[in-house]
Amino acid sequence: MKLARLGDVGHETPVLLDGDRYLDLSGVIRDIDGDTLAAGGLERVRAAAEAGTLPELPGADALRIGSPVARPSAVICIGMNYAAHAAESGSQPPEIPIMFLKTPNTVAGPNDEVEIPRRSVKTDWEVELGVVIRERALYLDSPADSAKHIAGYLVANDLSEREFQLEVSGGQWSKGKSSPGFSPLGPWLVTPDEVDARSLRLRSWVNGEPRQDSTTADLIFGVDHIIWHLSQFLALEPGDVVLTGTPEGVALSGRFPYLTAGDVVEIEIEGLGRQRQTYRNA
Amino acid sequence: MKLARLGDVGHETPVLLDGDRYLDLSGVIRDIDGDTLAAGGLERVRAAAEAGTLPELPGADALRIGSPVARPSAVICIGMNYAAHAAESGSQPPEIPIMFLKTPNTVAGPNDEVEIPRRSVKTDWEVELGVVIRERALYLDSPADSAKHIAGYLVANDLSEREFQLEVSGGQWSKGKSSPGFSPLGPWLVTPDEVDARSLRLRSWVNGEPRQDSTTADLIFGVDHIIWHLSQFLALEPGDVVLTGTPEGVALSGRFPYLTAGDVVEIEIEGLGRQRQTYRNA
Repeated sequence: MKLARLGDVGHETPVLLDGDRYLDLSGVIRDIDGDTLAAGGLERVRAAAEAGTLPELPGADALRIGSPVARPSAVICIGMNYAAHAAESGSQPPEIPIMFLKTPNTVAGPNDEVEIPRRSVKTDWEVELGVVIRERALYLDSPADSAKHIAGYLVANDLSEREFQLEVSGGQWSKGKSSPGFSPLGPWLVTPDEVDARSLRLRSWVNGEPRQDSTTADLIFGVDHIIWHLSQFLALEPGDVVLTGTPEGVALSGRFPYLTAGDVVEIEIEGLGRQRQTYRNA
Repeated sequence: MKLARLGDVGHETPVLLDGDRYLDLSGVIRDIDGDTLAAGGLERVRAAAEAGTLPELPGADALRIGSPVARPSAVICIGMNYAAHAAESGSQPPEIPIMFLKTPNTVAGPNDEVEIPRRSVKTDWEVELGVVIRERALYLDSPADSAKHIAGYLVANDLSEREFQLEVSGGQWSKGKSSPGFSPLGPWLVTPDEVDARSLRLRSWVNGEPRQDSTTADLIFGVDHIIWHLSQFLALEPGDVVLTGTPEGVALSGRFPYLTAGDVVEIEIEGLGRQRQTYRNA
């Protein structure tokens, strides 16, 4: 299944994508969020879809697309999880997953305009596979236990301000990861039965020129390993979003300019959809 | 005013401390959280207190004390903000505030039992002055603008697992800061008219033996500077909690053993109250 949330910020309607039609889920679930996922919301959506009773949402094509998951309690990120990106960042590949956090108020729709923060000179894109948690995960026994805690996958742009992250941070990355709108998510939450997250092509473009082009097969630590590993240190809550790291091809490499007002960033992951953001100054 | 939340986890009643009596605020505000603070909740509480119409909460003394603020969207921390603690951690005092994040699901009541995480051998205490945000703060013009964004102050224990934080983290601290229950807050949210946050004695004890004993006058970056600085990089939301750093006297110094099951930690800040936690293995 592909789920989405359509409408103005804070007033999105949950929908199910059926071919090129959007079916209204608001009679089945209140929203797509942690409470709904923890209460068997995906199972109710699937039953309603199979019953064929869901009405089409009128005028859906004209609506803004929101983040496909609302109000995560945490946005948890893995850094340096592609060897070539670690190299372009001047680092060795890690021997253990590196975790950092973004504030949840960075979450935005996939095509929302992005504000380049005031005084920013190094705003950078990062296409990433995102994982949405379905069921609380704490102290999992093995990576094989991760799958049942996963609601699905989505496209994420883990936007970063490299000066804030690396030069005025004392080494802690979150300062350059948490500006408003810095986590565009979506367009869809795609359930695990629809994609093999172990091998998905992920790409980014700036003003139509290619930047990143890699595959999740190159992840140093795969999704199941990440969820198991994180669960040893913190409780992943339903609706939380885990971003799995970005491949090479970002501006931090020195090969491309950083983003400025008027730029257009597109990112795409095979089977998970495409984002398109215009940038302007805050 | 001193506000608190009394009752079982998830079912706390907001109260106002009046001498040694607890007055029930549930007729005035729904809870003490970001929504209430953003909607003028503190002003409604003050008006009701002055009108003298608040009923006493029966049986309050027998109730558990919860975190005095519910469901923060973010717990934002400043590291190495006392020179002597930076030195005991093997670091130079920072020239700019170092920011890191804890997941909000670490928040607990001030006297709740704390679980030492599985495989932990370096669980450590940190008494800290916490700041609760009243009004969204983004791009403040100067530190002088911070005060009106502050709802009040509280005692926080910024619990840390030093192996998770420093040895298996790739240098990003959040992995050792986010275990369940690792942010006991309270007992009270104390409004700014009641305390001068620029000079408060803060202390900690383990099994009755003194550990930390310092004053917020020794903060390298004071509260107003921190709120202004953070607002340049992210939006602080109503109900968010900012922890301002810990003074010297933690186990990381090598002068004291780390916590083990059965230990009792007490922490106190002048005017803000006292916490007492018993530790057990997860």
